[in-house]
Amino acid sequence: MTPKATKSQPPVLTIAGSDCSGGAGIQADLKTFCAYGCYGASVITALTAQNTTGVEDVHPTPPLFIEKQIQMILSDIDIKAIKTGMLFDAENTRAVVRSIKKHYASFSSPKPPIVCDPVSVSTSGHTLLHPDALDVLISDLFPLATLITPNKSEAELLLLQRGLPISINTLEDMISAATRMVLTFASHAVLVKGGHITATIQDVERLLKAKQDVGVVKHGLLEENMEILLAGAKGREDVDLQPELVVDVLQERGGETTLFVRPRIESTSTHGTGCTLSAAIACALAQGNPLAEAVESATWYTHLGIEIAEPIGQGHGPLNHLHSTTRTLIPGPTKHDPYPFTRYLIKTTAGLWKAYVEHDFVKQLGKATLPRSAFIHFIIQDYHYLKYYARALLAAKSSTFSQIESATQTVLNILREINTHNTFSLSFGITQEQLESTPETPATTAYGAYLIDTGLQGDETKLLMALLACLLGYGEVGLWLKREATKEESWVVTENNPYKQWIDVYSGEHYQQAVELGLGVIEGRVLADPPSPSRLEEWRTVWERCTLLEKGFWDSAMAHA
Amino acid sequence: MTPKATKSQPPVLTIAGSDCSGGAGIQADLKTFCAYGCYGASVITALTAQNTTGVEDVHPTPPLFIEKQIQMILSDIDIKAIKTGMLFDAENTRAVVRSIKKHYASFSSPKPPIVCDPVSVSTSGHTLLHPDALDVLISDLFPLATLITPNKSEAELLLLQRGLPISINTLEDMISAATRMVLTFASHAVLVKGGHITATIQDVERLLKAKQDVGVVKHGLLEENMEILLAGAKGREDVDLQPELVVDVLQERGGETTLFVRPRIESTSTHGTGCTLSAAIACALAQGNPLAEAVESATWYTHLGIEIAEPIGQGHGPLNHLHSTTRTLIPGPTKHDPYPFTRYLIKTTAGLWKAYVEHDFVKQLGKATLPRSAFIHFIIQDYHYLKYYARALLAAKSSTFSQIESATQTVLNILREINTHNTFSLSFGITQEQLESTPETPATTAYGAYLIDTGLQGDETKLLMALLACLLGYGEVGLWLKREATKEESWVVTENNPYKQWIDVYSGEHYQQAVELGLGVIEGRVLADPPSPSRLEEWRTVWERCTLLEKGFWDSAMAHA
Repeated sequence: MTPKATKSQPPVLTIAGSDCSGGAGIQADLKTFCAYGCYGASVITALTAQNTTGVEDVHPTPPLFIEKQIQMILSDIDIKAIKTGMLFDAENTRAVVRSIKKHYASFSSPKPPIVCDPVSVSTSGHTLLHPDALDVLISDLFPLATLITPNKSEAELLLLQRGLPISINTLEDMISAATRMVLTFASHAVLVKGGHITATIQDVERLLKAKQDVGVVKHGLLEENMEILLAGAKGREDVDLQPELVVDVLQERGGETTLFVRPRIESTSTHGTGCTLSAAIACALAQGNPLAEAVESATWYTHLGIEIAEPIGQGHGPLNHLHSTTRTLIPGPTKHDPYPFTRYLIKTTAGLWKAYVEHDFVKQLGKATLPRSAFIHFIIQDYHYLKYYARALLAAKSSTFSQIESATQTVLNILREINTHNTFSLSFGITQEQLESTPETPATTAYGAYLIDTGLQGDETKLLMALLACLLGYGEVGLWLKREATKEESWVVTENNPYKQWIDVYSGEHYQQAVELGLGVIEGRVLADPPSPSRLEEWRTVWERCTLLEKGFWDSAMAHA
Repeated sequence: MTPKATKSQPPVLTIAGSDCSGGAGIQADLKTFCAYGCYGASVITALTAQNTTGVEDVHPTPPLFIEKQIQMILSDIDIKAIKTGMLFDAENTRAVVRSIKKHYASFSSPKPPIVCDPVSVSTSGHTLLHPDALDVLISDLFPLATLITPNKSEAELLLLQRGLPISINTLEDMISAATRMVLTFASHAVLVKGGHITATIQDVERLLKAKQDVGVVKHGLLEENMEILLAGAKGREDVDLQPELVVDVLQERGGETTLFVRPRIESTSTHGTGCTLSAAIACALAQGNPLAEAVESATWYTHLGIEIAEPIGQGHGPLNHLHSTTRTLIPGPTKHDPYPFTRYLIKTTAGLWKAYVEHDFVKQLGKATLPRSAFIHFIIQDYHYLKYYARALLAAKSSTFSQIESATQTVLNILREINTHNTFSLSFGITQEQLESTPETPATTAYGAYLIDTGLQGDETKLLMALLACLLGYGEVGLWLKREATKEESWVVTENNPYKQWIDVYSGEHYQQAVELGLGVIEGRVLADPPSPSRLEEWRTVWERCTLLEKGFWDSAMAHA
């Protein structure tokens, strides 16, 4: 009835440097893994002392210790994707390749994809890969990689290393470089990143006209049939209607070329962009997405990270890795807490809830000291109230037959409750005519009309909150009296208590089954439709209001004692 | 109109070891920072090669390089809280203290709180702090700390170091140890963690009776007036109704003692529990919470991390750091994407949206080739439709006066649109009697009654989705025709086009102002009440349905040509 709310988190491994300031390196990777809902492990190839203004120093990890880290992870955790970043030098790169190869045979099939970000120079100009490591990267690591993600200068450097001097300045250059790299380096695919190359929508359109086999994925651009968004944007001074573009080019070994196009953002919050992108691609691959879709998701994630960045540090600040991450307000049910939402409702209205459950009306009912007149008043008003309850539109607001059935069952339950009522009426000498002709008190109208209004104004879940508050409340009152009655020298009178039957009904199996069903329904709703803060507050307010109106109902009965 | 959706992320710094397997150390800390929505920076004091089965090796960072890392961070980033974990040895501990002290003078006031987790031995028995470092920790670091968070054996070790041999086995022992530690070590407060001490609810109640000044915070336990939850739990075989407890004891220098009580969980997913707890406390402090509230939040976050853990690795697996983290489906509006939700709606229904906007009815209207009969049919049916639109309950579903005003304004706009309609009617020779007496077509009833049904069934936002789909759709059609008309050799006839006035109305300033307002309303709703996946799909379905019904409306007109 209350399913366990686990979401599977595929383990992803980053092998890269540490950026103590948190914007790049394994720190950026781990943050990205969190944002994607992946489990993160990280092998550190070198420590850096850096911040948003630059790299102060690098302290490489001994190759043997890199191997030990990789060994510990790959021998224990079922890694679903690997990304490599800064590898520092030839020795460390060899250590990485050696360790991965050692485990390659034991990897579950299919082998975890490897995304290789060939980090070589920091934005601030610090060397992050010794020149002698380039050859190792190309000969040993690239052949294992599903994807290599060089930027302009890295692509130029890598091609030069293989005797192919090329200057990459246009989209055409990028495609040509990407094609050569896939041919030259034995990796499955190459993503040439366009962050340092200027392009316009006209450039893209011209290229697509010339090369009809090139695919394109656009994000954040005004496309056809978006005239209203264009008009809306025109009204805003801060929006550039013909923004410069960033275009990344994905070239796969099978020959497919795809452009990933988005607006260029003028921003200083770009520290760690490359790390973040490759980490995001690794996550999307670990989650089972095809390569092009993984790149689409990752480029847009990274774009938003830059655009929604907060200022941090004095220089080139980090991306906002948490731009689309929010905290669930009600965690899923667990073994020790199977009803977290109902518990939340009760805890956040504890004082009022107690005042209602342990109301003087209830206590006197238990003690058998409740004046008959108060009980008669209550029974008559409850009769009127139940008519509202049965009318409360639940079936009309349902969207599935199972909801309609459950709503109809509720109405049938009330009709059954009315039968019980008739028994009370008989034993307290209330006639049918008296039931019908005694006018509603304002307390009854308040509560009943509130149910109807809630049903008219809100959706089915909001109405359910109101209806269940009543159902659960009487269940709590019944059980409280029953429990108090079992205590030694209890104040609850069980012999010759004229209200015993009432207590028995609401603490009895039949009613309590309905309560348990209700608990399942309310918890299930919250799991299926986790509320935003404003919606949670709306639901809580309905619960609180109903508890108050329930209490008012009994206040009114006591006033008629 | 569309506020920027940034949430401030206070920067938090961890100074600790690296656990490559990702469950403890700075990795656990960074994951916790993400879950709390804090920005994470991390100084690495030592690398470890470890996994869930144990620690294989430790590679300490040179003290000088620790100082460099701290220097780079504290000189650049406005850190709001610091946590320290594994410091490895005396040299490294001194380096940490020296660097923090160096910056202490320059810290913005108030100084960032320091939470010190005195990590000394790993769960698997590996030494993580050399014995000679204990004195440095006590003399130099503790006096700077807001809180120290030892477990049973760390507390015993630290007290022994100061000549106070004590064995901690009961709640009373924990309080006594905590009190002594606050007196002996010059820190503001101590949290003695009870993960290795068994307690029952009876132990807690006995202690609270004996020491009336001790506060208690309970989480995940069945408390008073939760009889229905208890009854529900009884029905479940997997729930332990009298669970053993974990109790942490917080002792503050001012004398306040607080117990944090929760059910004990039998689990092997406890790797990194201590790291996670101290990191979570640091986050909650950075976010401005008082100490006791920070501890409450952190203990429960950590508890859920254990209870909702997924199996990872072969040994003692990590907590689930992302148990309550979800990804927002529609990111906040940005400069380049001020209408992300409307864009989402249009993109996910692109084919249908285009078929509606560029419908043959619209094209023929632009070309002036639309048969008069089709237009007359349309105008009459639109008249009927607008009556539904005006009746669509919007005001009744509002919950604020500003919503009621905006809803009423919509109705007034429709009454104004009816005036325009009358002009069309006049010029096409439609009489008022004809307007009223021509029966609705099924297409009109379908669309109109769908609005009413949506209003009855859903909440105000769902109804708004339906009403705005219509408003925005006509705005798109108007702008599309206007834009096509401005192209060279346009197919749109602007001279002597009998339908020119219709085009002018819907592309005109007055109507487009309403469209822009509508865009603001719809985007604002999504920001104020971020939808769950099921709710987003519900909203998208309403939009899609309305687009289909709009298209059906025009199909019907063309069938009457």
